[in-house]
Amino acid sequence: MEPMTRIERALMAALARADAPGAPPRLAAAMRHAVFPRGARIRPRLCLAVAGACGDDRPGVAEAAAAAIELMHCASLVHDDLPCFDDAATRRGRPTVHRAFGAPLAVLAGDALIVLAFETLAREAAAVPARLPGLLMILGRSVGMPGGIAAGQAWECEAEIDLAAYHRAKTGALFAAATLAGAAAAGAEPDRWRGLGELLGEAYQVADDLHDVADDAATLGKPVGRDAALGRPSAAAALGIDGALQRLSTLAEAAMQSVPPCRGAAELRALIRSEATRLVPKSLAARAA
Amino acid sequence: MEPMTRIERALMAALARADAPGAPPRLAAAMRHAVFPRGARIRPRLCLAVAGACGDDRPGVAEAAAAAIELMHCASLVHDDLPCFDDAATRRGRPTVHRAFGAPLAVLAGDALIVLAFETLAREAAAVPARLPGLLMILGRSVGMPGGIAAGQAWECEAEIDLAAYHRAKTGALFAAATLAGAAAAGAEPDRWRGLGELLGEAYQVADDLHDVADDAATLGKPVGRDAALGRPSAAAALGIDGALQRLSTLAEAAMQSVPPCRGAAELRALIRSEATRLVPKSLAARAA
Repeated sequence: MEPMTRIERALMAALARADAPGAPPRLAAAMRHAVFPRGARIRPRLCLAVAGACGDDRPGVAEAAAAAIELMHCASLVHDDLPCFDDAATRRGRPTVHRAFGAPLAVLAGDALIVLAFETLAREAAAVPARLPGLLMILGRSVGMPGGIAAGQAWECEAEIDLAAYHRAKTGALFAAATLAGAAAAGAEPDRWRGLGELLGEAYQVADDLHDVADDAATLGKPVGRDAALGRPSAAAALGIDGALQRLSTLAEAAMQSVPPCRGAAELRALIRSEATRLVPKSLAARAA
Repeated sequence: MEPMTRIERALMAALARADAPGAPPRLAAAMRHAVFPRGARIRPRLCLAVAGACGDDRPGVAEAAAAAIELMHCASLVHDDLPCFDDAATRRGRPTVHRAFGAPLAVLAGDALIVLAFETLAREAAAVPARLPGLLMILGRSVGMPGGIAAGQAWECEAEIDLAAYHRAKTGALFAAATLAGAAAAGAEPDRWRGLGELLGEAYQVADDLHDVADDAATLGKPVGRDAALGRPSAAAALGIDGALQRLSTLAEAAMQSVPPCRGAAELRALIRSEATRLVPKSLAARAA
């Protein structure tokens, strides 16, 4: 089965369990709005790719891990978009959750998605109990304190920002969790996959900064120029567009080099190469080549 | 060791792990503000009492379960107090988290406390992997969708409220989780403990409604008269004060009857009796007797 099919199926099954009889219907709708229709699903694809490279002996567990990571990502977007943070009006070309359902349901949708992520993992990995604690700790570390997404977002509320910690936590942590969880779901040693996740997380952050300066809003599906408007750190601002393109290329190369010896190493390197090309904004593709 | 000492120690250990080197300091402080100084800790005490009645063969797991339940409770209070919900200014006699730290850090503190609850359970129960999936599912169900705290809160955003589902989810679910998790942490069959948790959850809700009409703000540590001001359903409004006192007494009696046969049944019934007395607002104690 195609990875994207596996991911969507796992996410639909998780959302169906949340939207069971007796559930408040608008919260269920807000959660679906946050997760579907799909974005690039880059983190869960990475998770499945690493699980595949490690043998993927328990496909259901790998799919649950991938879905859990995507649910956490969606939860973080819903909360980041809230009026008290970015006050974003659009996401993936549609109204954000709080614009479509109001801020109270957006807060609750994020909360419920975080819980659903842990439940999704616990339900599926119950069949392989020895793998469950490790997977849970990987997931928890990537979204909580001291170094997960919530910690990353919180650096924006500090008087003095630790920029390295900010990026590592806000973007890198969930990418690292994707590679670590993919390995752990397949019963492999997760730690040697951390470097790959962190490099790809940084590459994704640089690409995101480039999209923010190079795209129009219709292409991006959300407002552009937000980094400059909100005074946020940006690789495009710090390095210039050509410097940021160069950095992206260097990171992709380092990511390919970092793949540990495993049976699926060649396919994984090919996936990283094609993903690195896809990440470059279309308007800059010629300049990057 | 006294139950309250066990609970505070487990909570302090959990918060210390969140506030590790590299953590954003204001988010760490907001999380501590949400959890300390302690409230009544009624849910974790219930969890430990049930674990004790079931033999408490793994005290560390019972303490982790109790701490996880209290962390979830604290997270729900932080999010409920947000400007987009109750916009509460005080809680436990101090400024609410969003008044002390701002709404962004209050959102993130709630998120991080939810994650910390799952991590606390996963870390300790890793030593008894057979008990971990059940404990995680109990915890997840009590706070997520379709019937946990987030679902309960979301009923306030529906055009037509299902009152039974609202109370069951918003208050009853975490009380039921406290009894179920106490049993599961001690390796006992959890389901026969559900009735006790649900009855105590309803008793607590009735008592809360009575405090809202009978206390002054200094006694309660938060504003009074909020149910009427916000048009929320209230047992005191529906049954009158004497009717609500009678209901509380009936529920406490039913809770005592519901304790399944176990070695610690007598102590547990005594605890329920003293707790039911403590729950009655001081100004109504003579009327209740």
